[in-house]
Amino acid sequence: MKILLDGMGGDYAPDEIVKGAVKAASEIEDTIAILGPEEKIKECLDNYKWTGDNIEIVNATEVISNEEHPAMAVRKKKDSTIVRGMNMLKDGEADIFISGGSTGALLAGGLTILGRIKGIKRPAIAAWFPRSAKKGVTLLLDCGASVEAKPEYLLQYGIMGDIFVRGITGKIAPTVRLLNVGVEEGKGDELHKQGFELLKNSYLNFCGNVEARDVVVGESDVVVMDGFSGNVYLKSSEGMANAIMGLFKNKLTEGIRAKIGAMLAYSKIKDIKGTFDYSDAGGAPILGLKGAVLKVHGNSRSVEVYYAIHRAVDYVKSDITGKIEDAILKIKEEEEAKSSEEESNE
Amino acid sequence: MKILLDGMGGDYAPDEIVKGAVKAASEIEDTIAILGPEEKIKECLDNYKWTGDNIEIVNATEVISNEEHPAMAVRKKKDSTIVRGMNMLKDGEADIFISGGSTGALLAGGLTILGRIKGIKRPAIAAWFPRSAKKGVTLLLDCGASVEAKPEYLLQYGIMGDIFVRGITGKIAPTVRLLNVGVEEGKGDELHKQGFELLKNSYLNFCGNVEARDVVVGESDVVVMDGFSGNVYLKSSEGMANAIMGLFKNKLTEGIRAKIGAMLAYSKIKDIKGTFDYSDAGGAPILGLKGAVLKVHGNSRSVEVYYAIHRAVDYVKSDITGKIEDAILKIKEEEEAKSSEEESNE
Repeated sequence: MKILLDGMGGDYAPDEIVKGAVKAASEIEDTIAILGPEEKIKECLDNYKWTGDNIEIVNATEVISNEEHPAMAVRKKKDSTIVRGMNMLKDGEADIFISGGSTGALLAGGLTILGRIKGIKRPAIAAWFPRSAKKGVTLLLDCGASVEAKPEYLLQYGIMGDIFVRGITGKIAPTVRLLNVGVEEGKGDELHKQGFELLKNSYLNFCGNVEARDVVVGESDVVVMDGFSGNVYLKSSEGMANAIMGLFKNKLTEGIRAKIGAMLAYSKIKDIKGTFDYSDAGGAPILGLKGAVLKVHGNSRSVEVYYAIHRAVDYVKSDITGKIEDAILKIKEEEEAKSSEEESNE
Repeated sequence: MKILLDGMGGDYAPDEIVKGAVKAASEIEDTIAILGPEEKIKECLDNYKWTGDNIEIVNATEVISNEEHPAMAVRKKKDSTIVRGMNMLKDGEADIFISGGSTGALLAGGLTILGRIKGIKRPAIAAWFPRSAKKGVTLLLDCGASVEAKPEYLLQYGIMGDIFVRGITGKIAPTVRLLNVGVEEGKGDELHKQGFELLKNSYLNFCGNVEARDVVVGESDVVVMDGFSGNVYLKSSEGMANAIMGLFKNKLTEGIRAKIGAMLAYSKIKDIKGTFDYSDAGGAPILGLKGAVLKVHGNSRSVEVYYAIHRAVDYVKSDITGKIEDAILKIKEEEEAKSSEEESNE
């Protein structure tokens, strides 16, 4: 197995990316190929005293920044880490591509170079989300790959999320819910009403709507969201968590009483931070592309990269892409069989 | 001024509602008319030893529950607190109606009995939201009155929010932003792209898009949201805040060290809770109706009711409804003048 790693993606590239790769490489047998300017990556590898033989460097001289227009940058920067990575995936030279670079460029590159799995209308960004009351994590998708959704996309997000959770966690029938403004059937706009119907009539273990308030509790394995609300959901939760943790940090260093109190309670406060610590989640897969792409947060440090590499191994081994292909094909065949049956009955 | 109060709306009605009214009534000169079954309300007033003369009881024998179909319930339950309240507002027998009852029934009753202000396409639920880094609060609207929005609604939410904030806080040019998936112009789906254009070309102090992550920081006075994402925004923030505060509560009572630590830091932890304490916000106005309606949370206690009554006085004094009417009329006249000018130029 060959894991491609974008050495230049993210705020702390290439240093923290290479550091994470070095740590992971010593624990796996697969090869990690780091994309980036050869000299720069080599220098980092030397800094971390790498002497093993399962890290390669793929020389890529350009970088696409977050400020560039994604589609335009992908067209122009042929030697960028993202374009090179996508091309290698496409040509079967690697099994998965991990990047902390521009999400827009990863999507644009994924769509134009790899293309969508046959039958998949839109790719989806799927993110693991922490739970406050239950064990494990919840998969949310779409977190913003498509800002204009259609009911059929919501169904496909459910199908892809179900396959991903089954593949990675081994759960037999993950519970799937739809993010909506109320729990009752018939709630929401036309998009969500129709999406609800499609999900209800599918083979999925669909358990109805969930309100935004209750997602974090963790009753669902998969929560289907249209990309716009998915983006709002994820970012508002993050904003609120940051706001509260920031206030605690400020307030608990105000005055000697509070400082001593915080010291005494330190291990418990660390536990709380741990509950909402995403670093071992291992990135957000972009599902629905003809190739495995794992997006890590732009502010990832070596620990996030390290975990992403381990998760990438699981991702490839579970053959998520192949399973999505099969599921979509099977649905199409069933629909065709049903419609030809109906025709012959007429 | 006469303030109508739904004595039967919310989880702790009528007891906590009446308790809040008694406290507020002793501080204001205006009359509070409590709607509900006469005997029941009288009993509560006696419990709280009310002897003043500015609380009246309006006998209303029915209650609309959250479980009922709002429009159907409003049609059938003519003697419900909500229908009676709306009719009194309409007939000019009162100046504002405060209720912790079913939001759906308040909207349905507001639309069918009061009707919309001329030119307003959809009413909006406007909620005050706390800020983590700046002083004051931010007004969010629409928080879920309409789950299907159009660009023109977004503009009207901006106009109504601006008028409300100016009226209540006295700010000259409140900053208005649009909740979107990115800050750059051109971000989002068609709804938000077109809404952005309308807001940008209006007289409002429009400062562009805001991402969900940054709303709580508090740079904006008004944040315009389509009702679906507004609902997701509000509920996900609430869910995350509850989750974290719940974890603190559990963790800081685990073991003697943490307990002592929490005791020492208690006043600071209380400060943090205070930052996100909505109880003095005074309810969420339903803007755009031909009458002032203030919705308080279903789980409101007497303190929320008490503050809502004080805010209601400000609301009526600022004549928000009249100002919205004027603003919409002025925009219409300007559009007509512009189009007749264009015609005469042709």
